[in-house]
Amino acid sequence: MSLATSPKNVAAALTEHWSPRIVAELDDNYVKVAKLHGVFGWHAHADEDELFMVLQGHLRIEMEAESVELDAGEIFVVPKGVRHNPVASEECLVMLIERKSTLHTGDSVTEKTRSLAEQLRPL
Amino acid sequence: MSLATSPKNVAAALTEHWSPRIVAELDDNYVKVAKLHGVFGWHAHADEDELFMVLQGHLRIEMEAESVELDAGEIFVVPKGVRHNPVASEECLVMLIERKSTLHTGDSVTEKTRSLAEQLRPL
Repeated sequence: MSLATSPKNVAAALTEHWSPRIVAELDDNYVKVAKLHGVFGWHAHADEDELFMVLQGHLRIEMEAESVELDAGEIFVVPKGVRHNPVASEECLVMLIERKSTLHTGDSVTEKTRSLAEQLRPL
Repeated sequence: MSLATSPKNVAAALTEHWSPRIVAELDDNYVKVAKLHGVFGWHAHADEDELFMVLQGHLRIEMEAESVELDAGEIFVVPKGVRHNPVASEECLVMLIERKSTLHTGDSVTEKTRSLAEQLRPL
């Protein structure tokens, strides 16, 4: 069994949109992958930065001051406290890195909020 | 100017092997890229995990118990305290994420050790 993990392959196998899966731990951070399609909703993480890396497709991260457009292979860190709204007009695969304490919907608990137990379940 | 960063493009533009460049900050971590070729040398980071993601090429990370082979798009986290030796038999591009306090050569200061000032200089 290989010790290496392909975040893109794990993300591609996900069956539900906006439902992150943890693929690795890095000190007090989780490395997660997700399959995105549509509009996530505005939220912020008061105390944690959030790294997005697009693995396949394209993602727009709307912010109040400006938006960022991410193609495959590109990264962006949403600084702590910045309200943002991920928008995937077509399905895309992303890798996320954020503190273990971060709730992925931030200060907003919505129908998209997923528990860690769900994120850890095997594929 | 785009807010997005392509770690692979930044890594490809580096002119020196084993000389990481910081491309983003994520809380108390740096996201770095590097161009690797050859054998780095055995070392460990006593208190910090280290994430490797291969962006192009292939990297073997030798560890005392076993080794991991990483192809493009694959990740591996070297757990804190685990002695490891990155080996790039051909040139490869990697993204690294580790605590800001981490010295990339770990407990070994070698001719490959680079200061943060060097890592932050513009391309």
